[in-house]
Amino acid sequence: MTAKPRFAVVLSGCGVYDGAEIHEAVLTLLAIDRLGGAYQCFAPDRAQMHVVNHLTGQEAAGESRNVLVEAARIARGAIKPLTAFSPADFDAMIFPGGFGAAKNLCTFATQGAECTVDPDTEAAVKAMAAAAKPMGALCIAPALMARIFGNGIDVTIGNDDGTAKAIEAMGAKHTQAAHGGVVVDKARKVVTSPCYMLDSSISQIADGAENTVKALLTLMGR
Amino acid sequence: MTAKPRFAVVLSGCGVYDGAEIHEAVLTLLAIDRLGGAYQCFAPDRAQMHVVNHLTGQEAAGESRNVLVEAARIARGAIKPLTAFSPADFDAMIFPGGFGAAKNLCTFATQGAECTVDPDTEAAVKAMAAAAKPMGALCIAPALMARIFGNGIDVTIGNDDGTAKAIEAMGAKHTQAAHGGVVVDKARKVVTSPCYMLDSSISQIADGAENTVKALLTLMGR
Repeated sequence: MTAKPRFAVVLSGCGVYDGAEIHEAVLTLLAIDRLGGAYQCFAPDRAQMHVVNHLTGQEAAGESRNVLVEAARIARGAIKPLTAFSPADFDAMIFPGGFGAAKNLCTFATQGAECTVDPDTEAAVKAMAAAAKPMGALCIAPALMARIFGNGIDVTIGNDDGTAKAIEAMGAKHTQAAHGGVVVDKARKVVTSPCYMLDSSISQIADGAENTVKALLTLMGR
Repeated sequence: MTAKPRFAVVLSGCGVYDGAEIHEAVLTLLAIDRLGGAYQCFAPDRAQMHVVNHLTGQEAAGESRNVLVEAARIARGAIKPLTAFSPADFDAMIFPGGFGAAKNLCTFATQGAECTVDPDTEAAVKAMAAAAKPMGALCIAPALMARIFGNGIDVTIGNDDGTAKAIEAMGAKHTQAAHGGVVVDKARKVVTSPCYMLDSSISQIADGAENTVKALLTLMGR
């Protein structure tokens, strides 16, 4: 137990509207480092659902980008395809949010409770669950946990009624949480926090990421 | 002096190899918010010098991206073109680093001491200087200050000899600094910090950004 706890951070692109939310991703890495952990970033090697011009909020018609290649911007190049992930190498896994979690890691953004999960993402999550290792999910990423686990898993996406109803339609239990708050499902070892699903300051996002990492360390027995 | 100090944060794209370094940018915003300030992001509305695939490190031949549109990813859409900047609206300006500062805001990456500065960037910096308001620059962005001010301005880019020589060839004085360290030129009210010009952890980048914002607050008399 003297080695640093090892976190796999799964990114879904680079930018809130079509990829990983950048503040949540960076502040997750900061929280891991400040709390004494080590991290490795991963992303699925596949095309993004689409590209959004973040200045106008409109889809950039005809443009195509790859989730792994764009996520490499946040990771400064130090990233691996999710197919290279092995649960034996890590103590925990974290999914920052952003629409990429609901557009590229699963289809929740377009299909709601009827969504399907990216196969590489589903395999990684199921491998961690089989190894009884903890996972965290920020913002809208808890939709992934609801879809994969169902069966009453306790998660939060903050306090948005419509989203909470879709989460519950997948068989999960939704618990409201406020800025920086976390919901812990001890049976599945899953920690969730609303982050930018609430209208938040960047400091509140840092708090949410830090509290998520702290809860994961507790679930590891550290 | 009771209103929040207002910071203009000038971004140069989104990604260390062709734009703004994402960790430095996000951690600058976090430092401003945590230290009680307010921020507004800006970027020049122009084409990037080029696009780099951050997974391979190679140029993405044939691809073209706009600095303002990509910087909007870091700003979550809340960004303005640099032509909309007025020094009357702000108490300080900060430039995070990344190759974008040396490729899109000036040509230091390709031309070294012979570089030229993007006209909108030069106008904004000169307007702040004329208003005697403080500016910060992280990582390689101090090259901008060396080019625009010259005349013995005291800056740091860490401890890289070749880069320091090019900085001095533009008429600046280079002072070495370590992780989280800042160099303050009191006459020009310019604060610089090496950040990722040193081999740094993300926590050390957070320290560098925070110490830069603190030094700017001191220069404001806060």
